[in-house]
Amino acid sequence: MPETKRKIIAVIGGSQPSMEETRLAEEVGGELARRGVVLVCGGLGGVMEAACRGASSEGGVTIGILPGDTADSANPYVQIPIVTAMGWARNISVVKSGQAVIAIGGSYGTLSEIAHARQGGTPVIGLYTWSLSRNGKPDNSIIPAQNAVDAVDKALQAIAD
Amino acid sequence: MPETKRKIIAVIGGSQPSMEETRLAEEVGGELARRGVVLVCGGLGGVMEAACRGASSEGGVTIGILPGDTADSANPYVQIPIVTAMGWARNISVVKSGQAVIAIGGSYGTLSEIAHARQGGTPVIGLYTWSLSRNGKPDNSIIPAQNAVDAVDKALQAIAD
Amino acid sequence: MPETKRKIIAVIGGSQPSMEETRLAEEVGGELARRGVVLVCGGLGGVMEAACRGASSEGGVTIGILPGDTADSANPYVQIPIVTAMGWARNISVVKSGQAVIAIGGSYGTLSEIAHARQGGTPVIGLYTWSLSRNGKPDNSIIPAQNAVDAVDKALQAIAD
Amino acid sequence: MPETKRKIIAVIGGSQPSMEETRLAEEVGGELARRGVVLVCGGLGGVMEAACRGASSEGGVTIGILPGDTADSANPYVQIPIVTAMGWARNISVVKSGQAVIAIGGSYGTLSEIAHARQGGTPVIGLYTWSLSRNGKPDNSIIPAQNAVDAVDKALQAIAD
Repeated sequence: MPETKRKIIAVIGGSQPSMEETRLAEEVGGELARRGVVLVCGGLGGVMEAACRGASSEGGVTIGILPGDTADSANPYVQIPIVTAMGWARNISVVKSGQAVIAIGGSYGTLSEIAHARQGGTPVIGLYTWSLSRNGKPDNSIIPAQNAVDAVDKALQAIAD
Repeated sequence: MPETKRKIIAVIGGSQPSMEETRLAEEVGGELARRGVVLVCGGLGGVMEAACRGASSEGGVTIGILPGDTADSANPYVQIPIVTAMGWARNISVVKSGQAVIAIGGSYGTLSEIAHARQGGTPVIGLYTWSLSRNGKPDNSIIPAQNAVDAVDKALQAIAD
Repeated sequence: MPETKRKIIAVIGGSQPSMEETRLAEEVGGELARRGVVLVCGGLGGVMEAACRGASSEGGVTIGILPGDTADSANPYVQIPIVTAMGWARNISVVKSGQAVIAIGGSYGTLSEIAHARQGGTPVIGLYTWSLSRNGKPDNSIIPAQNAVDAVDKALQAIAD
Repeated sequence: MPETKRKIIAVIGGSQPSMEETRLAEEVGGELARRGVVLVCGGLGGVMEAACRGASSEGGVTIGILPGDTADSANPYVQIPIVTAMGWARNISVVKSGQAVIAIGGSYGTLSEIAHARQGGTPVIGLYTWSLSRNGKPDNSIIPAQNAVDAVDKALQAIAD
């Protein structure tokens, strides 16, 4: 690993994804690895595991920021487990550690991560995920993507901006 | 304060509310106090301060769960400052400490609180706040209220259920 | 509860105290209540429960800052449960929320609290607790007390300084 | 980086070390890298920076678990910045993420890390750091080391046990 800082992108999503979400997560992970981007995620199953599996299969680096007290819950494709012992608060560390965030599906945990990312101004790219409106007005701050490669393109574009 | 556990309700919302949101927050605080409910919030300005002011003026108890390292940032109507030193992670503690949550307006910080509350199954009552849809389908888990008294009624109803 | 800020003192110590430590914790809690000081602690058993029991029996206010996701683990004398969902990180919030800290016995969790308190400059009064030396030189920053009343006296003195 | 989990050791210590502590931290970092161990630390200056510099100069991998909201405070030898936004609570994540901990000098922040490590049963090796006694009895759970190589030897031995 060179000493120059590498790009880091967070992939977020639920632990019980659909087959389509699982496939997308694996493709996103693989595409990030091919572009030399480090993948950070919550380290558990579902979208997190699929993304790590995709990245690992392409020789990428995978970081899992775990909620519990030990590394035992990490999925088998997490290379660097970060053991926070913070429970849900680790969601904040996941999105703050990415320069951009790709959200795939997901439930309320994913929504909390989208909110924490946007609170800090981190770009969020969405695939089959939440959409928001505030007091009746649409909030368009989640950038929609068409597929895995498009999501990675848009995340890298957002970082470059 | 009697030894029997008192009801605790969280009031969340932005630090830069509209005049209408400020008025609603103050009314919600006052109504909670009149019902004998302890108010917990994030302890800072805006909706948090208005709700604490309303509760204090009716003799209620107010708790402010603060993000910083000291109690200095607490609004003047916080009676019990909890100094978390956790930054945004304190949002989680605010909503976990309420048996129900009343959301008034708010930005991404408030959205993160709604998400953390719903992740844990805590009822959320909304006034002029976020609405959500997931992968194109509306998520109706934020219970809409018409006014301050209605919000408190619905929060107490949700706790009783 | 008057709107003027009340003094808040944290009582820390282990969940499996000796009989003597339990007695001291109860006395400290009672003495704090008699002086009108709010008691904040970690909300669980052992020293925490004894201190809350002592305070409650004298009409004091007790706050328990809990590590888990729900208030269920609070001891029966906690009047205001704060549910952090942060695990051990809640130790930091306990000591930051007190203007002074009284440590009674305790194991490594208590030691972490002493360290976080001293890092922030919060005075720590000790009864049968840890003593420290750094690189061979004694660190005398834990103020020793002789008994419960002495501990409360010294904590209030430290706040007044 | 191979997919098999690599050993990860935490190096902790103050941000204002002595020259001797700085030299030791750099040697510890270099020795960890030569043994193929990933270095995790708090990511800031002083002992943290010296350890990362030592590891980087030997081709090692360095992770910095940062307290703030951005990666800007990372020392220049942190290759993988984890942005926790948790303040002092990140100390817990640093020591939970290491399978063993090497403490070099340090002040109260380091003491909190030693306490959190020992609370969880993680071995701690000490160089010029804190020593502890509990209620008058020495606590010998910090394993003393003679020099940097000895510290790494003992940390790896403790993991193997």
